[in-house]
Amino acid sequence: MLQLKIVIIGAGNVAWHLGKGLQDKGQIIHQVYNRSIDPAISLSKRLQCDYTNKIKDISTKADLYIIATKDSAIKKISESLNINNQLVVHTSGIEDINTIKHNRNGVFYPLQTISKKRKLDFKNTPFCIETSRSKDLSLLSSLAKLLGSKVYNINTHQRKVIHVAAVFACNFSNYMYMISEEILSKEKIPLEILNPLIQETANKINNHKPKDVQTGPAMRKDIYSIKKHLEYLKEGNKHDIYKLITENIIAINKHEL
Amino acid sequence: MLQLKIVIIGAGNVAWHLGKGLQDKGQIIHQVYNRSIDPAISLSKRLQCDYTNKIKDISTKADLYIIATKDSAIKKISESLNINNQLVVHTSGIEDINTIKHNRNGVFYPLQTISKKRKLDFKNTPFCIETSRSKDLSLLSSLAKLLGSKVYNINTHQRKVIHVAAVFACNFSNYMYMISEEILSKEKIPLEILNPLIQETANKINNHKPKDVQTGPAMRKDIYSIKKHLEYLKEGNKHDIYKLITENIIAINKHEL
Repeated sequence: MLQLKIVIIGAGNVAWHLGKGLQDKGQIIHQVYNRSIDPAISLSKRLQCDYTNKIKDISTKADLYIIATKDSAIKKISESLNINNQLVVHTSGIEDINTIKHNRNGVFYPLQTISKKRKLDFKNTPFCIETSRSKDLSLLSSLAKLLGSKVYNINTHQRKVIHVAAVFACNFSNYMYMISEEILSKEKIPLEILNPLIQETANKINNHKPKDVQTGPAMRKDIYSIKKHLEYLKEGNKHDIYKLITENIIAINKHEL
Repeated sequence: MLQLKIVIIGAGNVAWHLGKGLQDKGQIIHQVYNRSIDPAISLSKRLQCDYTNKIKDISTKADLYIIATKDSAIKKISESLNINNQLVVHTSGIEDINTIKHNRNGVFYPLQTISKKRKLDFKNTPFCIETSRSKDLSLLSSLAKLLGSKVYNINTHQRKVIHVAAVFACNFSNYMYMISEEILSKEKIPLEILNPLIQETANKINNHKPKDVQTGPAMRKDIYSIKKHLEYLKEGNKHDIYKLITENIIAINKHEL
């Protein structure tokens, strides 16, 4: 059975769930590092393991180092690691694999929206993996499969593209929900009334291309409704977002985006 | 048991599913009207009922007239109906109840994204109903419940607000999926890889406020990633949409939208 001794670097959303997920599947979380001490302590309590907030105290004895910090910290941390020939990976959607200068480097990127306050289902979390050495690719693939995840071999350029696409599909659609909630709350209507619509919109994508199931005033060029909506929204940010997206949807059939 | 003789006016997405749904629950679809004849014939075949494309030939003998045309046609059609004291409703999210001048008027608005090519699950389609006479409210409520739907008593102003909110939550989030697909397709990556992310983003809304589960570069003010994304998108529509929404997400914690 695969059993690795792992150091988790970072104590944010990804570290929080990945550490626990790997531990639950029999991996040994050897140590947690985080620059500020309180999150390091919280995560070490969750995982019942050692912690440190000093880079020089990061264990030299692990098989695998998972850098799950913010993107801009990956380079510096990986350079500071005092290791021999162990595998070092980051979990970023946007960073080059070669941001990590060690011979055995890699990427272990969970393609999911992750919050500490919400349980993460790894069966529902594809992993995009990349390594310099092919043996390490098998290792990361086994690790992801152990979690129950689907695995994709994705190079750095592809991963960056996926990351941009994910911002639209996830972060921006959630922001659309947020605007909806604000609009409804002014009338004391709960967002609950839109839940079936939100679920159905997402479900459709399982079987249809988004373009084929685009509905609404903009898609049917219903200028009458669009004008009423813009009047209701008056000026301001919601108005501007409505206008820009509507113009783009109207243009779908005229030219490529 | 409730059994009404119904005329369906219009043959678009809503008429297509509502006619069939009501018939499946024992209601009598007496006739279909549509201005252009081909869609009228298609729907009449689906429902095995009479059809016409002449307003003056619309039956005077039904209990209920459901106007499921485009919004701007509702007024004229309702004025042309040669009826006595029967109930006339429209299915619009945006039109006043009083767009229909008859004494017994109402609204029967399905709050769902509806395409002909996709089966509609009425159990998952809330109805917003409104009538001038309270007896008719019970009637519409019974009809919606017969379909298995959740029913909300919603006045015209509230309904218009819900409609605007629905454009953001549904039409605009689907458009975000469409942009994602376009970005991925340039790299020959299927949208499938983002499906779990899209589903999870929508599922979160069942238990969390959108604001509490907003993630991504803009939410964490990760200017480093945002710059890289904007560089990748270069100029053009996707760039402008990314920029506008990102600016708004960054501003979330500074002021109300």
